[in-house]
Amino acid sequence: MITRMSSLFLRTLREDPADAEVPSHRLLVRAGYVRRVAPGGYSWLPLGLRVLRNVERVVREEMDAIGGQEIQFPALLPKEPYEATNRWTEYGPNIFRLKDRKGADYLLGPTHEEVFTLTVKGEYTSYKDYPVILYQIQSKYRDEARPRAGILRGREFLMKDSYSFDLDDDGLSVSYHKHRDAYIKIFDRLGLKYVIVAATSGAMGGSASEEFLAEAATGEDTYVRGSGSDYAANVEAVVTPAPPARALDGLPDAQVHHTPDTPTIDTLVDFLNQADLGRAFTAADTLKNVLLKTRQPGTTEWVPLAVGVPGDREVDPKRLEAALEPAEVAILDEADFARNPFLVKGYIGPKALLDNGVRYLVDPRVVTGTAWVTGADKHDHHVIDLVAGRDFTPDGTIDAADVREGDPAPDGNGTLVAARGIEIGHVFQLGRKYADAFALDALGPDAKPVRITMGSYGLGVSRVVAAIVEQSHDELGIVWPKAVAPYDIHLVVAGKDETLKAGGEQLAADLDAAGFSVLLDDRAASPGVKFKDAELIGIPTIVVVGRGLVNGVVEVKDRATGERTEVVLADIVAHLRG
Amino acid sequence: MITRMSSLFLRTLREDPADAEVPSHRLLVRAGYVRRVAPGGYSWLPLGLRVLRNVERVVREEMDAIGGQEIQFPALLPKEPYEATNRWTEYGPNIFRLKDRKGADYLLGPTHEEVFTLTVKGEYTSYKDYPVILYQIQSKYRDEARPRAGILRGREFLMKDSYSFDLDDDGLSVSYHKHRDAYIKIFDRLGLKYVIVAATSGAMGGSASEEFLAEAATGEDTYVRGSGSDYAANVEAVVTPAPPARALDGLPDAQVHHTPDTPTIDTLVDFLNQADLGRAFTAADTLKNVLLKTRQPGTTEWVPLAVGVPGDREVDPKRLEAALEPAEVAILDEADFARNPFLVKGYIGPKALLDNGVRYLVDPRVVTGTAWVTGADKHDHHVIDLVAGRDFTPDGTIDAADVREGDPAPDGNGTLVAARGIEIGHVFQLGRKYADAFALDALGPDAKPVRITMGSYGLGVSRVVAAIVEQSHDELGIVWPKAVAPYDIHLVVAGKDETLKAGGEQLAADLDAAGFSVLLDDRAASPGVKFKDAELIGIPTIVVVGRGLVNGVVEVKDRATGERTEVVLADIVAHLRG
Repeated sequence: MITRMSSLFLRTLREDPADAEVPSHRLLVRAGYVRRVAPGGYSWLPLGLRVLRNVERVVREEMDAIGGQEIQFPALLPKEPYEATNRWTEYGPNIFRLKDRKGADYLLGPTHEEVFTLTVKGEYTSYKDYPVILYQIQSKYRDEARPRAGILRGREFLMKDSYSFDLDDDGLSVSYHKHRDAYIKIFDRLGLKYVIVAATSGAMGGSASEEFLAEAATGEDTYVRGSGSDYAANVEAVVTPAPPARALDGLPDAQVHHTPDTPTIDTLVDFLNQADLGRAFTAADTLKNVLLKTRQPGTTEWVPLAVGVPGDREVDPKRLEAALEPAEVAILDEADFARNPFLVKGYIGPKALLDNGVRYLVDPRVVTGTAWVTGADKHDHHVIDLVAGRDFTPDGTIDAADVREGDPAPDGNGTLVAARGIEIGHVFQLGRKYADAFALDALGPDAKPVRITMGSYGLGVSRVVAAIVEQSHDELGIVWPKAVAPYDIHLVVAGKDETLKAGGEQLAADLDAAGFSVLLDDRAASPGVKFKDAELIGIPTIVVVGRGLVNGVVEVKDRATGERTEVVLADIVAHLRG
Repeated sequence: MITRMSSLFLRTLREDPADAEVPSHRLLVRAGYVRRVAPGGYSWLPLGLRVLRNVERVVREEMDAIGGQEIQFPALLPKEPYEATNRWTEYGPNIFRLKDRKGADYLLGPTHEEVFTLTVKGEYTSYKDYPVILYQIQSKYRDEARPRAGILRGREFLMKDSYSFDLDDDGLSVSYHKHRDAYIKIFDRLGLKYVIVAATSGAMGGSASEEFLAEAATGEDTYVRGSGSDYAANVEAVVTPAPPARALDGLPDAQVHHTPDTPTIDTLVDFLNQADLGRAFTAADTLKNVLLKTRQPGTTEWVPLAVGVPGDREVDPKRLEAALEPAEVAILDEADFARNPFLVKGYIGPKALLDNGVRYLVDPRVVTGTAWVTGADKHDHHVIDLVAGRDFTPDGTIDAADVREGDPAPDGNGTLVAARGIEIGHVFQLGRKYADAFALDALGPDAKPVRITMGSYGLGVSRVVAAIVEQSHDELGIVWPKAVAPYDIHLVVAGKDETLKAGGEQLAADLDAAGFSVLLDDRAASPGVKFKDAELIGIPTIVVVGRGLVNGVVEVKDRATGERTEVVLADIVAHLRG
């Protein structure tokens, strides 16, 4: 097909949009691919829609290849199924809710686990029906607190969501790996550089979970990689390796010390090192107890929780939230402290917590036999050599301390290195959460019901467009990979005389006949304007019909490398097929 | 491609869904094309989605052929543009509204005139940029009071909406006729029987407007056709032909009569005919004055309005509403009558209305020189021979009286015949309403601004699927036209033995290689069950691999005609291409 720029609904912009923070936002707007309509809401102009459809096609082909069956649900969904799974509540302000004219509650679907589960329950009864993989490619909605970065984090976006339904865990594992493999093929075909990281589960509930992150310095997702292996994980998912437990024999007794003027870990460590205690202390020897409260979804009661981390670390709110999900978590406020006078602010120790029934979770480094400096539950007093497993026994561990570059990698190979990425895919073994909520059973060969186990698999189709641009652009504009470029060839007529225009039209027709899609710049604009637009728009191959035409020669320019080649017209199709 | 029914996500149903009123609803559910998820919300299962995509493809091809450029807007739109045109108010309860987490107002787009206008304004400045036609194929939302008939009248539905932007009325007319012609091509390709009717404008405001109605006894839209021409119009759009005015000279004077016990037109006519007045009266000689009140959108004040229609006709609420749009209209209530004692219920005449400043509109048949029996504004009294243009002069005419079969056709050829249809398309010359609202101007060749004129063109993609089934089914199931059938060929393996199964697989592979899409019924079910499902599903060509296979023969059945042909395997591809 041939599209003529003289009539194309496209106006490139010289200026960056004022709200653009990242290259993909800047370039997709400037090159006329998308336009902002509302906060987090973008329209796709003709070029943009072609790219989006190209991504969609690749996704569809690979989903079909693993036996996925495409269906399509409404985006406007009734509340009831989401109430049955508690997600109506759990999503909090993150979904769009509305009422119809009769006052019935609806939401705009963020993901569709509930209705897929109900649909499979409606159609299938026997174990012979399974397994099945269903998917859709559909506009999804999330009421992001801070929609930003153009289509990278919108409130309405195009997503492929699929769901697998299996009879047992082995089946789920097969479906999971089919998706994982399909995602690898998809992202490879799209020319993306990405890592697969171990992930937490979000509001989904479930077990095994991995994210596909497109590598990008502008990415919102922080992850870590291992320096000695291909280990990669979301910061939320990093499991702190626990050191081996130590023998309790011969450890010094715990002693309470008067430690005036030590409001911070640093002042405490200074005090200890000046107190002639026979050894040197660091912040890592202290145990900091952070007082929180949690509330389970759908309940009103806040329950106190103490988290103990080594004094050289902070509690990372994202890791804390991920570890406690789906519960809400908040810091204890003054009123809470007033109600619990055993909590001596600044001097809280394990003893008061455990004596008063406050749930106490500690960092995995706090293993049996480790000795700590911590609060003595008395103003201006700390206890030294309080030994885990001897002087106190926490209620469990929690991975909430911050993760740092240089920390040992969880797989034992090397240390952690920080990196950033854009989440483009998520594969997730849901397990039986949704099947349980809706009693999705298959009648087994022995006529007994078998509870179905599920996976859910998201892929951000519109976000992928932005992720590609984040990875593939230069100072002049976008550089599309061939698989997703809006056209195969950008044909520039570099001049206004009739011979050139006719030559351009003829070449466009020839290329079209040879199966190429062609964007023909037949505008009256100057060659300079046209070249600039061609660089900005980013079609991989630019063909220039210019002065050489009288000698039967055109110029072929590779957008990515900038390499220019003179090609005889008679050879052009063969050259471009090269 | 080959799809095997043994793994297809499809379960046909033996029973009609309880809520199904029309064949398309019944059959699309029973044959596994769609499933109800919410009131007016349906999911498209694999077969249904294929049909929907086929319709979409035909629509897209014909829109592209007239130079339409596809773009895609969000469905979730901010209130502000719709406030600027007053549609936020005018739509009343018919749109879905919601607030985001910050309390900002949004709606789910019913149509997108506002944002298309703003987008063109954002990109285009010069007269050289125009004309342009933009379209999208997208889920639309309307909070129907009574969602019904499955996908025929849903609350979330797939629609193609396009918008034309022209410099002048001639240009608009060209764009309008391009669309009209494209719609004719689309509906012809889809095998639909349809009429094009003159239409009113709905809440859009504007001028020329036609609807495409698929002929269907189950249709919600009533229209009329002329017996003597191809005239067709929505009942709301029928213009009553006004008879010629008559001379006033020599007409008898108006006389007030005491007419006790004549609460209805019938009793009044009986009374007159028994009163020895020298001539016979019918209900058509009486003038019935209906008291109403109207309220303009965005205002709170109700203004009284009287509508005079011949006594043999009723005021048709839909015609009345269409005539008064966008104003709301209501019947006067007791309190209104109490406030206006000059209104003598049952005996209201033109005099009291006009004397008291009540706006008075009459049926177009009430021309100058016509004499009427009507209320005398006094209990138990009527006036006879009250002559329009002599004794009273109404404020204007209104086309609100009911339209009946047998009424003269507005084009003067024959009489009207009633019919029903399903609205599948609407082409509409919007004019400058939206361009005015957003000051969409092009800079003309003389550097003066030219206000753009617009058209809007809707096509119900998902509704077309139902309309096709309404027109194309029999007692056994659906009968798809080739252009939209989910597969080209339904290949039934009529038996379980391995030779048949292998033969079926081989034939499926051959047909696939020949370019046909094949639905292969490879299930373990009995031939009877398979045949029944094939009829229900409605793929146009059914090929049966059965006993004849040993002799190299298969049976080809035409779903529409029921005709069966034995075909030698070697000839099958040629036969099917036939």
